[in-house]
Amino acid sequence: MHAVTFQAPGEVALAEVAEPALRAPDDVVVRVDASGICGSDLHIYHGRVPVEVGFTIGHEFVGTVLEAGPEVERVEVGDRVLGTFHTACATCTPCIRGDYHRCAHGRTFGHGSKLGDLQGAQAEKLLVPRANLTLRRVPEGMSDDVALFAGDVMGTGYHAVAHAGVKAGDTVAVLGLGPVGLCAVQAARASGAAQVFAIDTVAERLAMAERFGATPLHLADDDPKRAIRAATGAGVDVTVDAVGDPGPLALAVSLTRDAGVVSGIGAYAGKGEVPLGLAWLKGLQLRLGLANVIAHVDRVLALMQAGILDPAPLVTHHMSLADAPEAYRVYDAREALKIVLKP
Amino acid sequence: MHAVTFQAPGEVALAEVAEPALRAPDDVVVRVDASGICGSDLHIYHGRVPVEVGFTIGHEFVGTVLEAGPEVERVEVGDRVLGTFHTACATCTPCIRGDYHRCAHGRTFGHGSKLGDLQGAQAEKLLVPRANLTLRRVPEGMSDDVALFAGDVMGTGYHAVAHAGVKAGDTVAVLGLGPVGLCAVQAARASGAAQVFAIDTVAERLAMAERFGATPLHLADDDPKRAIRAATGAGVDVTVDAVGDPGPLALAVSLTRDAGVVSGIGAYAGKGEVPLGLAWLKGLQLRLGLANVIAHVDRVLALMQAGILDPAPLVTHHMSLADAPEAYRVYDAREALKIVLKP
Amino acid sequence: MHAVTFQAPGEVALAEVAEPALRAPDDVVVRVDASGICGSDLHIYHGRVPVEVGFTIGHEFVGTVLEAGPEVERVEVGDRVLGTFHTACATCTPCIRGDYHRCAHGRTFGHGSKLGDLQGAQAEKLLVPRANLTLRRVPEGMSDDVALFAGDVMGTGYHAVAHAGVKAGDTVAVLGLGPVGLCAVQAARASGAAQVFAIDTVAERLAMAERFGATPLHLADDDPKRAIRAATGAGVDVTVDAVGDPGPLALAVSLTRDAGVVSGIGAYAGKGEVPLGLAWLKGLQLRLGLANVIAHVDRVLALMQAGILDPAPLVTHHMSLADAPEAYRVYDAREALKIVLKP
Amino acid sequence: MHAVTFQAPGEVALAEVAEPALRAPDDVVVRVDASGICGSDLHIYHGRVPVEVGFTIGHEFVGTVLEAGPEVERVEVGDRVLGTFHTACATCTPCIRGDYHRCAHGRTFGHGSKLGDLQGAQAEKLLVPRANLTLRRVPEGMSDDVALFAGDVMGTGYHAVAHAGVKAGDTVAVLGLGPVGLCAVQAARASGAAQVFAIDTVAERLAMAERFGATPLHLADDDPKRAIRAATGAGVDVTVDAVGDPGPLALAVSLTRDAGVVSGIGAYAGKGEVPLGLAWLKGLQLRLGLANVIAHVDRVLALMQAGILDPAPLVTHHMSLADAPEAYRVYDAREALKIVLKP
Repeated sequence: MHAVTFQAPGEVALAEVAEPALRAPDDVVVRVDASGICGSDLHIYHGRVPVEVGFTIGHEFVGTVLEAGPEVERVEVGDRVLGTFHTACATCTPCIRGDYHRCAHGRTFGHGSKLGDLQGAQAEKLLVPRANLTLRRVPEGMSDDVALFAGDVMGTGYHAVAHAGVKAGDTVAVLGLGPVGLCAVQAARASGAAQVFAIDTVAERLAMAERFGATPLHLADDDPKRAIRAATGAGVDVTVDAVGDPGPLALAVSLTRDAGVVSGIGAYAGKGEVPLGLAWLKGLQLRLGLANVIAHVDRVLALMQAGILDPAPLVTHHMSLADAPEAYRVYDAREALKIVLKP
Repeated sequence: MHAVTFQAPGEVALAEVAEPALRAPDDVVVRVDASGICGSDLHIYHGRVPVEVGFTIGHEFVGTVLEAGPEVERVEVGDRVLGTFHTACATCTPCIRGDYHRCAHGRTFGHGSKLGDLQGAQAEKLLVPRANLTLRRVPEGMSDDVALFAGDVMGTGYHAVAHAGVKAGDTVAVLGLGPVGLCAVQAARASGAAQVFAIDTVAERLAMAERFGATPLHLADDDPKRAIRAATGAGVDVTVDAVGDPGPLALAVSLTRDAGVVSGIGAYAGKGEVPLGLAWLKGLQLRLGLANVIAHVDRVLALMQAGILDPAPLVTHHMSLADAPEAYRVYDAREALKIVLKP
Repeated sequence: MHAVTFQAPGEVALAEVAEPALRAPDDVVVRVDASGICGSDLHIYHGRVPVEVGFTIGHEFVGTVLEAGPEVERVEVGDRVLGTFHTACATCTPCIRGDYHRCAHGRTFGHGSKLGDLQGAQAEKLLVPRANLTLRRVPEGMSDDVALFAGDVMGTGYHAVAHAGVKAGDTVAVLGLGPVGLCAVQAARASGAAQVFAIDTVAERLAMAERFGATPLHLADDDPKRAIRAATGAGVDVTVDAVGDPGPLALAVSLTRDAGVVSGIGAYAGKGEVPLGLAWLKGLQLRLGLANVIAHVDRVLALMQAGILDPAPLVTHHMSLADAPEAYRVYDAREALKIVLKP
Repeated sequence: MHAVTFQAPGEVALAEVAEPALRAPDDVVVRVDASGICGSDLHIYHGRVPVEVGFTIGHEFVGTVLEAGPEVERVEVGDRVLGTFHTACATCTPCIRGDYHRCAHGRTFGHGSKLGDLQGAQAEKLLVPRANLTLRRVPEGMSDDVALFAGDVMGTGYHAVAHAGVKAGDTVAVLGLGPVGLCAVQAARASGAAQVFAIDTVAERLAMAERFGATPLHLADDDPKRAIRAATGAGVDVTVDAVGDPGPLALAVSLTRDAGVVSGIGAYAGKGEVPLGLAWLKGLQLRLGLANVIAHVDRVLALMQAGILDPAPLVTHHMSLADAPEAYRVYDAREALKIVLKP
């Protein structure tokens, strides 16, 4: 079968790879109907996250169950399904605590042998282990474009807001309006944020955030700190940093009210200078880390089914698997918000 | 000045009463622009909650600040303000814990000497103690009809949902679609409930709940238990009982999923038979009690200002203070959802 | 091999039963070194919980791993282990939420075909499914008598306290000083309760609670309500009802301060009259249900290893498997707190 | 009367100052029986926190009520009382939320006009505003030395642990064994920590932590990271950083398990380099800030009364007010853990 494989930094290629087959009694083989290209795929594309040459990439998918092991209960052959971007063992200490994203045996689709040796979803077929934990039926009437988001980008936006403990009536700021930030805007509104301030420098993204119910603020032109102080007095209850750099984190600290929460969902790396004195004086909580999408997927699906969360506007491109090299070029050039690949 | 006073069970009258005057440095005198008649006023009207003859009743109000003591900071003379239905001392042990509704020195407007000896709001003027805790400016553009709800009925609907810990994506059932139940429907949607089931026997109330985004279920005709089981599989995450009788509580227990929450906001009285075995087997939490409106009023106001909560459709009647006897008759006959009295 | 089997109401017998064998890749076969008789075994003994004639009973055990399937990771052949009283699938919706005690596929040891068809622990050997979830190594130096409690009775006492959200400095009352109540006394102290009031009618149990750091109160002789009111002013922050009848629940409601929590760990059955009016007026939370021992077992073990929880004094009898009929008679006559059976 | 006053960086002096007098109806005047010198007094002593020349310093005290305004309810003339280190208004938005430490009108004793213009406690008498919020009766039998800690240092240690959400059975590390760190060790044990690792470089402090039930680890000699990894496997559930510098914070991040909490109670200043990548990868929460002692004081007192928290061993010196210049020299030279001044 065909699959999008990593070849070298800056180079992916459609290649002929082995068909997946069931190995464990709770495995499923899915025919992939649609897969997404995600920001974290670019780390692989550029070689910053090393995967083996020829490894199939991709971790967002919607598909149809072709085969299911005897212990699979959640789905059946023929079901239209979506999946989470990683699996978990469900029985290690972090999993028992509910921290599926920190599973001691977690495996991420399409991220090479270091992250679990699980071939990716940008392919015609996909082996899905631990299907009872990671697969869900697509609710009737939900498009591929929407369902694709449940187990990754929308789950991440939801996590950023839920992990911060947003309450109905709170004010929220979101820094960085890539797909995760835009999903966080929706999740904040869905969680009852009375006002959401959406901050970026790209006009189209600000406009989309405004369509999602946010107050758009241009990072450079609008003086977000002054605008938010004017609107809220004390600062926002919660700031979501969907960028993941020390600069936005420092801005987040300044935007947040005393005893508020900064939710750092963006992928920080290395060391960074943080305004510790101000954060301490304000009594802030910084809640960092990857999303726990397995814990959230049922709620996210319910909200998407109700139309309360709707990521469809984020899909700017539909392309074919065969066009993957071009799709990665477009995505890397930031010409697309979300590209969906179909076989 | 004129005020609506209790005279005898089933009888209220407009009477001439003394003008209020500032006593403490954090007191405010408000000119009442609108007051509401509430379900709990009926307990007084019928003599079930005893108040002195001639006592002014009413505890929902919007008005204008006429005088303010020297320690009042939140509002100024001339401000349009709304208030909570009770005051609290802010420094007793329950208050320090944040349980303002269980204040050791709490006083409820218009409930006689037993509940703090605080004259009521169905009057031309009102003395408001502890104004820094209980008064808020009405946000610009908000009508009296809407603002009136923040410190009582909508605060109670919000409490029912917040106290139950509803999370975005949850399913919620609301039993009893009086004003509090209908506000709970809105609060549940505002808090991210993916689906809200609204249960009552009155067609108009079911229709209004549906307008607020709920799935209406007629208690007798629709078999709510079967309908909710069909829609959710395991039952709802949270059930709000806005009735306050053992019957609805037993239904609430049966509608709620294992390890879910029943939020009993309706005023229970005396003893009642509860399906303890089923509640225990399911591992439920029953969270009972009056609303902590002081703790919620800022968030409720923010949601009303954003248009996310909108109680305006609940106001079915506008009448004058002078018509209070007729207004109580109409309200007692359940011909109105909410009656607003203007001077 | 030999096992204690149910024969008829009031009759158990040592019988020759089939040896267990591994079936699934995460199964373990344990040689049982010690098993306990528990209050819930009496429900079986008396036929109130129906199990098949000849079914092996018992669900508390410590043993040694004889065989382990290829997916077992937590323990190895030869390890000394303890187990929880039930298994869970780890991947159904309640399990993903962390509610292992409400697993859709949960199986309880020694409770007949209705509760999962899992032979019991009062036997020479035991088949343990889902061993990664339910088995733990016994920490070095911990006796069988202590370890036996981690996955059942002490886990239940811990749950009663943890589920109520006891904070360091709180006051706690415990109603009913059977093994679970006595473990709840220890768990309350371990969780930082500044004062624990322990209520029962049996002098020995009150004395043991006092040894565990509680203030003993005789239900009839000491007027617990008055004593607790005198000591605390407002009532206790949390009351644990370890009895499970409406009477103790009503007492619990009266002992608990406004906005406090009643944790109902005792097994309620059927319907019961509850002082709903008082509970509502106080704004109480009633948190009911079985213990989630799988979620707690690691913390309970850590506390037992540190000597902070120590159930050893509860073991009043050591007997042999062959003496099981006599052991059940003694236990049923309430002559023992905990009986440990050895092969 | 006499009071310890700031004169110049490095210089304090006993001076004759004006007697305090009641101003507001909830004021109290206290005769100070004992006051403490605290680490934050050194910031004033060295001029890093600027106060006016001649301002009375000190914010830890035990005393006797000399006069009480008419609205004071918690205490009476003649009562032996202790106080919190700051006051709060109880009615601003942060206070209503329970964040008394972030009160918009908070005033700190002995910190000059910038922090509320409230004369300090190292004096013969003290004016205490908002007495219903900040004063408590000293429980019978409690010494001055112990009571002195409730509203400041022990409240801070308690906060560090409570704010981190430590659960019974958790493991905790404490970095920095000054008075706050040592109190955090006690608070962690009191909250049910199964094991507490206490890290410092001073042998006496390590020894005292060990007496308090901790496992002492010398920062340089013991390789705390390796030792904690060996003991816990995954790292501790919670790390308390009682130092307040980027270095200890980085160590805290490395010691804490995935999805754990770092509680930063030490006073950070300015900007600092933080291992954001590691903290993000682990999914940590950093909870920073000053202690909310008003929220905790009743629980802390209850634990001290029960003997569960006992700061008495931290008092290394008793001196007289007149010896204050020498006392500050000794404290600044780190020759004392806690110095108590008596008139």
